[in-house]
Order: sequence, then structure tokens, then C-alpha cells
Amino acid sequence: MSATPGFGEAVLRAAVDGVRADVEDDRLAEVFALGAWTGIAEPGDGVAGAFLAAFGAADALAVLGGGVPPGGRRELLEAFDRWRPRFDPDVSLRVFRNAAHLGIRLLLPGDDVWPEGLDDLRVHAPLALWCLGDPDAVRSLRRSIALVGARAATGYGERVAADAAAGLADRGFSVLSGAAYGIDGAAHRAALASGGTTVAVLAGGLDRFYPSGHEQLLRRIAAEGAVLAELPCGFAPTKWRFLQRNRLIAAASRATVVLEAGARSGSLNTAGHAAALGRPLGAVPGSVYSATSAGCHRLLREYDAVCVRDAADMAELVADATTEVPLDGLEPPADPAERRVLDALGARTRRLDDVARRAGLSTGETASVLALLALGGGAVQTPDGGWRRGR
Amino acid sequence: MSATPGFGEAVLRAAVDGVRADVEDDRLAEVFALGAWTGIAEPGDGVAGAFLAAFGAADALAVLGGGVPPGGRRELLEAFDRWRPRFDPDVSLRVFRNAAHLGIRLLLPGDDVWPEGLDDLRVHAPLALWCLGDPDAVRSLRRSIALVGARAATGYGERVAADAAAGLADRGFSVLSGAAYGIDGAAHRAALASGGTTVAVLAGGLDRFYPSGHEQLLRRIAAEGAVLAELPCGFAPTKWRFLQRNRLIAAASRATVVLEAGARSGSLNTAGHAAALGRPLGAVPGSVYSATSAGCHRLLREYDAVCVRDAADMAELVADATTEVPLDGLEPPADPAERRVLDALGARTRRLDDVARRAGLSTGETASVLALLALGGGAVQTPDGGWRRGR
Repeated sequence: MSATPGFGEAVLRAAVDGVRADVEDDRLAEVFALGAWTGIAEPGDGVAGAFLAAFGAADALAVLGGGVPPGGRRELLEAFDRWRPRFDPDVSLRVFRNAAHLGIRLLLPGDDVWPEGLDDLRVHAPLALWCLGDPDAVRSLRRSIALVGARAATGYGERVAADAAAGLADRGFSVLSGAAYGIDGAAHRAALASGGTTVAVLAGGLDRFYPSGHEQLLRRIAAEGAVLAELPCGFAPTKWRFLQRNRLIAAASRATVVLEAGARSGSLNTAGHAAALGRPLGAVPGSVYSATSAGCHRLLREYDAVCVRDAADMAELVADATTEVPLDGLEPPADPAERRVLDALGARTRRLDDVARRAGLSTGETASVLALLALGGGAVQTPDGGWRRGR
Repeated sequence: MSATPGFGEAVLRAAVDGVRADVEDDRLAEVFALGAWTGIAEPGDGVAGAFLAAFGAADALAVLGGGVPPGGRRELLEAFDRWRPRFDPDVSLRVFRNAAHLGIRLLLPGDDVWPEGLDDLRVHAPLALWCLGDPDAVRSLRRSIALVGARAATGYGERVAADAAAGLADRGFSVLSGAAYGIDGAAHRAALASGGTTVAVLAGGLDRFYPSGHEQLLRRIAAEGAVLAELPCGFAPTKWRFLQRNRLIAAASRATVVLEAGARSGSLNTAGHAAALGRPLGAVPGSVYSATSAGCHRLLREYDAVCVRDAADMAELVADATTEVPLDGLEPPADPAERRVLDALGARTRRLDDVARRAGLSTGETASVLALLALGGGAVQTPDGGWRRGR
């Protein structure tokens, strides 16, 4: 393993112990690096996911600190360019210290409580999760349903959310949502009021609850359930991070139900993730004259969502899915950039900028994709630095 | 052709000319018999449908008058028992006279305006239809959508019905419905108000409009569109006839849409007929707390109905269906009585009452089914009057 750049072992130990107490010496650098990477790679960065899976987080972090990729594979160096400006040892340390200060834990893939559904995201799975609250609540996600919907909910939608959350609590399901105003908040509140378990996933760091009007609600969720984030403290939610947060909600739950949504609601993005993952997808019908039911009706018409009326129907979504044989063809579609770079490669060696021009991508993007292909043998770098098609 | 029992040719001519002017001499007895049979066989009687298709209506009517089945097939005689008590030459004549008196026309399969979708009902297709109004409105059923729903409609459902009917009229669709209170009435009214074409199908004879509170509405429909009935004047609607009326609505239109329906609404029966016929089926969503949307949500959940929000969605139902290759397996399921009688037959000859006992049916029912099977060769009557399995 390469040395972790800029940190002595005592510093790593202090940082890591603040967010989880059970890390053995031989895992210390890796756990630190996974936490650090949550502040370096954007959520859902499949290149980061593939590299970290191939090299380990610590060795990959060492490359950012000036090291050489494992196995001396210098052809992969350029792919690290996207992360190099985002790596700052001080920030990585501060991420751990702030988390420890707020009582936030670091959850890792393979942990007993890790939501196993997240593994279906493959290279797009989160590298780690920051958790405020009870890890047992996170474990309960294995029997959870995501209730999502419009911020601008109507009284109808909030009533459905409240009834559904209460009914799911009665049936032993935990309720996963995004803590937004409207439907999300109503679902969390009703789950809490019914003595059920509820978990929220935020799009930014857990040091600053968003939306601010739900600070009290989020404190209650953290006190009685759990609040999760893929990004560490100090990182603000962005549009991209909201969309990626939605993929976590879809993947960590057993089914996603949209309760009320405008025709372009963000909750349709969560629904899209659920559909892409082959998760059961439900939509609650409403008046055809209600703009906040338009999204649900689109899901019923265009996404083959199941019409669900109440908690019993929602529980049935999950029951039906578990008795079904998984369908083929649910693998996410291949990365279009990868397809284009493959098309741009030939049997003869081409320079990086030639491949990029043929693929219609920037040289940076192209270098990332080539590095990813090189990992799997799909592209080969020649001694003169050019690229050709692999096996 | 056997002589038509009890009627001279001049009597037949007078009767038939009162309800249609275009009948040639060689078709006179057949047309009269078809009209007479609408008052003899119950709607949807598949045995009657098969017999009349095999022998012709006039020859079958002659059997009721004491004749012998064509080809001397005495083994079929017993099957006529179910109709013999219902045959009365005076009633048959009166049916024509009353219709003529009220300006009612007799429409027959093969007529230019005959709704060709009815042919999909096969042996259960109507033998003829009585029509009050404009035959061109009946022709328009080739581009019609059935709008059906709860009698106890809410303001929401009536608004959807009115908007849908108006939107369909704008798109050149005629609106088919059953003239009941609630959704049906709202749909007819809105179609009329939009200058569209609308057709109603009643469960009893056209001499008495049902429901009586819709007498004015039905007069308007007859004046501007058409009112149809399978049963002749003097015949009251019964529960069975309502259910059979629903099959005509489903079969004569290009798609059926349920706008609002309780969990056990009769309109679900129309929807079931549409589904069995492979016709596109739509359901309008509504509040999950509305008892009158419960039936629509059942259709979305259990019958794979398409969620439709407005006239555009309804028109799309038809457009999608016409570009699709018809599915296999849409043939109505085999008659369970036929299945049981077949099971009760063997290679050795059995007496009728033995076959009936094994099949768990009355001897009358069994005789009918055996006669039907004998037509197709599936059962064979032996010289001693017993029955055995055919080919």
C-alpha cells in the first residue's frame, strides 16, 4: 500500500476513531481514504467507483498525493486529473473532525447495517455514507419503502403520505425519504408519530440540515431514526447532488412510491432510478385536474408504475417483487461516452487528442474513459503514449 | 326453406316493411325471423347464435312452429325446448307492429351501418338491433369510444365525463354509453352539447325509455344520434339484459373508458367485456379516498387498464390499438358447460340423463350443449337416442 499522503498514522487513527471505533490497524488507511474520497469524487462518479474497486481507496488516494498508479500503470494517471484539484489533505482531515464533533458515524460497504440494495448501483454505489442517528434504523432499510413526492403538496397528498406512512409503520416497514417540504416531510412525520422507523437521505453534508425549515424535523429523525448523506460535512447540496441523492433513496429501499408529483417533479427522477434498478415502482392516483397528480399519472401511463391506493398496496409491491424471478436486461445501459470512445479506437494506434476528436469528447473525459477501458483490457496504451483497441 | 309458422306472406311483408323498406322477397322470411328471434332467445344466447348461423333464422323458427330441424337432424330437437315456450306468433307480429308504430328500424348484421365490432362477439353477437334515430349515427360507432361509469357519480366524475365527451366530439369520435344516471348521462349530454354524435344502448325495448328520468335525454339522443336495443318493444330490462347490454357497448366501440365506478359498479362488467374482447380499456384515476373511484383503481391494478386523463389520452388508446397486431388468445374462454358435457361423454354411448348427471347440469341444458356439439361433430347421437363422444 502506498503511504497516505500528508498524514502520519497517529493523525489517521485520531481522525478515524472519531467516526467509528472498530477499525483495525490494517484497515485504517483504507477507511480514512474512503471517507476522504466522499469529499473528492462527486456522488455517482462511476470512474471513481471503478478505480477504487480496482486499486483500493488508499492506493487511489496516494495517486492524488503524487504517487504512481498501482502496477506502475502510468497510462491511468491522466484519468486522475478530474480529482487532483479537489484533493486537499486539510479538507480530508476536517471532514473527519467535523463529523466526530457532531456525532456522525461513517458507514462502509460490508458493514452489518449497510443497505445491501445500494450494491445494485455497482460502480455508481456510494463509497461510504455519513450517518447521524441510530445505525439500527439504517439496518431497517432492508424492509423499507421510499415515499417521495412534490414539495408543493396539496392537503390530499399530505393526507395520503400520512396514512401511508402510518400504515407502513404498522406493517413493520421503515419509511425512507428525502426530508423535503411537502410529501417527504409528511411521510417522515407520520412515521415518527406512528412509532415507526424513518430514515432521511440529504443531498449535502450533515452539518447543515436542508431544508432549513425542516431542522426540527431532521433533529427528530436523527434522534429516533437516522439521517444519511453521501457527502461529508462542509459540502453543500447542488442540483447534481440532489439527483444522486435520489438514486440512493431508490436503491436503498425495496420499493419507491410517488405520492403526488407535478409533471416535472424531482420525485420522478427517483422513480426513474427505481425503474432502472428494477425496483417496484408505485404511483398514487389523484384528480386528473390536480397539477400535483400529473407526475403520478405520467408514471402510471409511461413507466408502468403500479397504481397504489394505500399502505396495503405498497406492502404488496414488495411482496410481489420478492416472489418474482429477477428480470434480465435490468443492467444499467452502457455509458454512452464509453461507447463513443470504443468506436473511436482502432487496431492502429491513435493519439489521445485524435481519439477525443473522433469520440466528440474532451481530452479529459476521453482520458478517463480510456483509463477505465484499460482496466478491463478494452483499450491498450502503447509505449509511445498512443491508444488502440484492446481485446 | 320451411314455411314460417302461422304467417302468410302478405302478413310477413306488412310486418317487415314497417321496420325496413329494402327487403327483397327472397330475404323476407329470414328478416322477419331474425326480428322475431330477438324476442325469443335471450341476448347473448350462444346456442341460439350457433343454431341460427347453422340453419338460418327462418328454418330455426320453423322448428319452433313444429317443424323438423334441417337435414332431419332430430337429435337437435330437444335443444329447442328452451325457446319453445317463448315462441308466440302473435308476440312476434306485435314486435314488428309496435316498432313500426314508433318509427323504430330493424338493423341486421351485414347492413352498411352495422357496427362491425359486434362480429367479434361470434355466436354471442346480437341477431339484430332495433334502432330509434339516425342509422348514420350507428355507422359512426366505427369511430366511437364507450364512456361508462357509476350511476352515483360525483361532481368530479361528471366533470370528467363532460370534458371527455366534448374533447372526443372535437376529435371526431362518437360517444357510446348506456344512458344511465350519473356518468352515462353526463357523457351523452356533453356529446350533444358539443355537436358530437352519441349513441345509447338500452337493456330493454325501445318503447319504454329507461331510466324514466332520462326520457327527455333519450328523446334528444334519438333525435340527434341513435338509441339501440337488442330486445324488441314490450320487453323489460332485467339484470341479465343489463349485463348483455354492456357487452354490446364494449363490442360496438373501439375502446371502453370507465370514468368513475364503485368497487362493484356495473361498469366494471362493461370493462370486463372490453378486456375479454381485446378492446383497449382505459380508467380515469381519482382520489384514493373516493368510493366512486375505487372501481377505476381496481381496473388499473388488476385489469391492466390504461390510466387516461382526458380525451387526448382516450383517442390515443384507439390509435395505439390500431397499430398493434391483434394478440392471440383473445378468444373468449370456452363455455364451461360445454367443457363439462364433453368430459361427461365417453366412447361408449350414454343416455341423456346419465350425461347430465355426470356433467352436473339439467337435462335441458345438457341437451342444448349436446346439440351444439353435434353441429360441430364433437358429440354423436346413436340410433337408440344415446350420446357418445365424436371426433
